[in-house]
Amino acid sequence: VKRKVLITETCDSSLIQGLQEMNYACDYNPVISGNEILKIIHEYFGIVIASKTKVDKEMLEKAIQLKWIARMGSGMENVDEIFCKEKKIICLSSPEGNADAVAEHAVGLLIGLLHNIPKGWQEIQQGKWSVEGNRTTELNGMTVGIIGYGHNGSAFAKRLKNFNVTILANDKFKKNFGNEFVKESSLDTIFENADVVSMHVPLTDLTYHFVNKDFIRSFHKNFYLLNISRGKVVSTIDLLDDLQSGKISGAGLDVLENEHFEKLTPEEKNTYSELFKLPNVIITPHVAGKSKASKRKFAEVLLEKIKRIDLP
Amino acid sequence: VKRKVLITETCDSSLIQGLQEMNYACDYNPVISGNEILKIIHEYFGIVIASKTKVDKEMLEKAIQLKWIARMGSGMENVDEIFCKEKKIICLSSPEGNADAVAEHAVGLLIGLLHNIPKGWQEIQQGKWSVEGNRTTELNGMTVGIIGYGHNGSAFAKRLKNFNVTILANDKFKKNFGNEFVKESSLDTIFENADVVSMHVPLTDLTYHFVNKDFIRSFHKNFYLLNISRGKVVSTIDLLDDLQSGKISGAGLDVLENEHFEKLTPEEKNTYSELFKLPNVIITPHVAGKSKASKRKFAEVLLEKIKRIDLP
Repeated sequence: VKRKVLITETCDSSLIQGLQEMNYACDYNPVISGNEILKIIHEYFGIVIASKTKVDKEMLEKAIQLKWIARMGSGMENVDEIFCKEKKIICLSSPEGNADAVAEHAVGLLIGLLHNIPKGWQEIQQGKWSVEGNRTTELNGMTVGIIGYGHNGSAFAKRLKNFNVTILANDKFKKNFGNEFVKESSLDTIFENADVVSMHVPLTDLTYHFVNKDFIRSFHKNFYLLNISRGKVVSTIDLLDDLQSGKISGAGLDVLENEHFEKLTPEEKNTYSELFKLPNVIITPHVAGKSKASKRKFAEVLLEKIKRIDLP
Repeated sequence: VKRKVLITETCDSSLIQGLQEMNYACDYNPVISGNEILKIIHEYFGIVIASKTKVDKEMLEKAIQLKWIARMGSGMENVDEIFCKEKKIICLSSPEGNADAVAEHAVGLLIGLLHNIPKGWQEIQQGKWSVEGNRTTELNGMTVGIIGYGHNGSAFAKRLKNFNVTILANDKFKKNFGNEFVKESSLDTIFENADVVSMHVPLTDLTYHFVNKDFIRSFHKNFYLLNISRGKVVSTIDLLDDLQSGKISGAGLDVLENEHFEKLTPEEKNTYSELFKLPNVIITPHVAGKSKASKRKFAEVLLEKIKRIDLP
């Protein structure tokens, strides 16, 4: 009998085809619920997920044959990686598949903010052509701090290479990654010099509300904030407060603490309604890494990684 | 007596200071009308303008002492350069002063279009968080055609260097500007290969409505159009038509044929009202080159050029 793989979220057909070529039998069920997975997970040797499927301890305890979890995308906050390690289940992610898209998006948000692009366009749609109200701030000459220097952070730095900026990068878990163009820096150096700071960290206990009042107030200058990582990395209330105070000159966000607009608390509703009114904010609906090409690239990257798994 | 300079549009104070250091007497009058200039232009040795002041034959005939015209910005369509040549009046412009800003803006418009940045943000402001409706198209891997390879076109190409794109550039008046990264190309090569085309030409008789039905239909693929040059370079009606047909996948414009919203003809009103509804359009109010830093840079560039004028 063939080893079985469960695919619980939409994927590119090349992924199913590739797994079949590796002699796996694939069950493709992109609308399956968590409860339904619990009932059948014991049959599966591998599982392919994206961001929606939660693979927690309860599920892993039932997954008696599971040898690998493949995540389309980056960010493993929906998988209990510590318990996987105990159970010797291999966790694979595929940040290589959308780092280009994420990096482009970060540049787009940054220039969009500095050059008032969505703001100017919205005014024009309302019949207002205002030059003086939309004079641009040049990225040229700025210092950009990148926090988290993985696939996404480094792809962003690469894109900025010809914009005449200084790049300072900090990564808690990496050393000696600096080069002629990217200066490996302490947080203090970033606090002291940055005009822009961009978050490229995973969501963990260490990074939850990493951008809070203390963090924001550590910057010597007013600065622009980009968050293209996870919404919970930023305290929205603290962000709003310092956008209003002027300490934060502008914010470009691809993520929010609560991205389920139908399930907002009254407090969240208030905060968001204030945030969405500000002229120096741009928010996009968590699409930085969701390019049309990304699903095919996730398939390529994951198939390579699954092939390399050393199986009995 | 000192030689006099008339400054007819807002400038950085460093320009006045620099001219005084060159022993010029400056009259700074940024709200002066064309008719008022006509009455006094005979007194002046130099005139500093931006985009609003029209220096036509009538004015030049009265400008009996005029030796130079200095334009803050690029684009000399408001100056009769041919008649200036006859009268041996030196025309100076300062595209070096805002090429960085223009190039950043072009990148911002392009990624904004491909990644649905203003569109996604506008939906969020209306309470709608739509991932599938805003999946991004990667710039990564595209072929970008640049038409007009002066200061702005080349600064745009430079910015794109690390985005993994192929750059094809065409300039009617330049040869041998290509390099390892920028391929000097015929228009036909651009028509055949481009996914994006960006206009960086001055407005002249040759470029008026350069982007028209014929031009658009010459492209082999559907393509994205950027216009960061002058509004009249693009036929708005033809653009609208092929945005609606799908031949143009999206348009990022910093300029329009008529930028005076209070003076639109009924036809223009109709065209604009259709254009402003499209989800694959972004328009900004002619601010690409109008960065906060640009006035100071124009002053620097023009002072250098004025210094170099060989005067008796």
